Amino acid sequence: MIVLGIDPGLNTTGYGVLEFPQVDESLRDSNQRLGETRLRGPRLIEAGVVRGKASGTLGERVREIHDGVADVIASLKPEVLAIEELYSHYERPTTAILMGHARGVIVLAAAQAGIPIVSYPSTQIKKTITGNGHAAKWQMQEAIRRELNLPTLPEPPDVADALAIALCHCYLSRTQVG
Amino acid sequence: MIVLGIDPGLNTTGYGVLEFPQVDESLRDSNQRLGETRLRGPRLIEAGVVRGKASGTLGERVREIHDGVADVIASLKPEVLAIEELYSHYERPTTAILMGHARGVIVLAAAQAGIPIVSYPSTQIKKTITGNGHAAKWQMQEAIRRELNLPTLPEPPDVADALAIALCHCYLSRTQVG
Repeated sequence: MIVLGIDPGLNTTGYGVLEFPQVDESLRDSNQRLGETRLRGPRLIEAGVVRGKASGTLGERVREIHDGVADVIASLKPEVLAIEELYSHYERPTTAILMGHARGVIVLAAAQAGIPIVSYPSTQIKKTITGNGHAAKWQMQEAIRRELNLPTLPEPPDVADALAIALCHCYLSRTQVG
Repeated sequence: MIVLGIDPGLNTTGYGVLEFPQVDESLRDSNQRLGETRLRGPRLIEAGVVRGKASGTLGERVREIHDGVADVIASLKPEVLAIEELYSHYERPTTAILMGHARGVIVLAAAQAGIPIVSYPSTQIKKTITGNGHAAKWQMQEAIRRELNLPTLPEPPDVADALAIALCHCYLSRTQVG
């Protein structure tokens, strides 16, 4: 299974694509081999950011985000898009609404490519990855670095957040299969 | 000039297309004829709503809104898209962020068609149309009905709001030309 995690933002949208070995259904009756399969963790395929030009109009920026995410989908062929769930209290409402613009065109790109969208609350993502629903940012980054065998912490934070969402979906899918 | 006004919403997006006679620059030196030209008001070309299926996923809904608005742009060829400006205090933040999703794909459709986007604060729209920045909804509807010579009040409210934004841009463009 290939999972695309996205952290949407009008200035910087982070993305991370992970490949996660599916449990082969034919191995279900062999506990030992199933166990070995389970031990293989998600593998990083690609991660990065899509930026709207800071000087651009709102129209140009949403277009760059839409086209950038559509490119990632077309070239890496994820089977699902994972994104953080909306919550009702944002510190800065206008920023949240502008994030909504980015999220809208990202969701559109997924729908146009025919891939389903899954979303998880922020606390569930943190809890799934670190065991603590209120983990600090560095704890999340360290957990992601370790799990994906990265030499350094994923930067910028938008990339780390996108990888966290993709990882969360991999872990929860694994649980459902088991 | 053809103006497309939009009132974005994830459930119902209202639109209104007005044609507004441009002042011919060659008439600028003839005050009387310029005056006559100015008296011709905006004319309604088409108005209606684009709906996201209530039962649809978020992806399906933003896609229907995007495609519906892109269709209106392709068939009626507006030269500008007018939309209400964002403000910072919304009663229901989650609704506002979902509205942001709709606004994002609408702005994208305009950018893809290469038409500019203008936005006006709510109070400026009300003041331009009724003379009162805090006009009630019925006052707005009545002003729109009268100005466009409609037999009845424009319904649903999303259509009236879209026509109000388009009218506001027509009036302010007229002022700028004079």
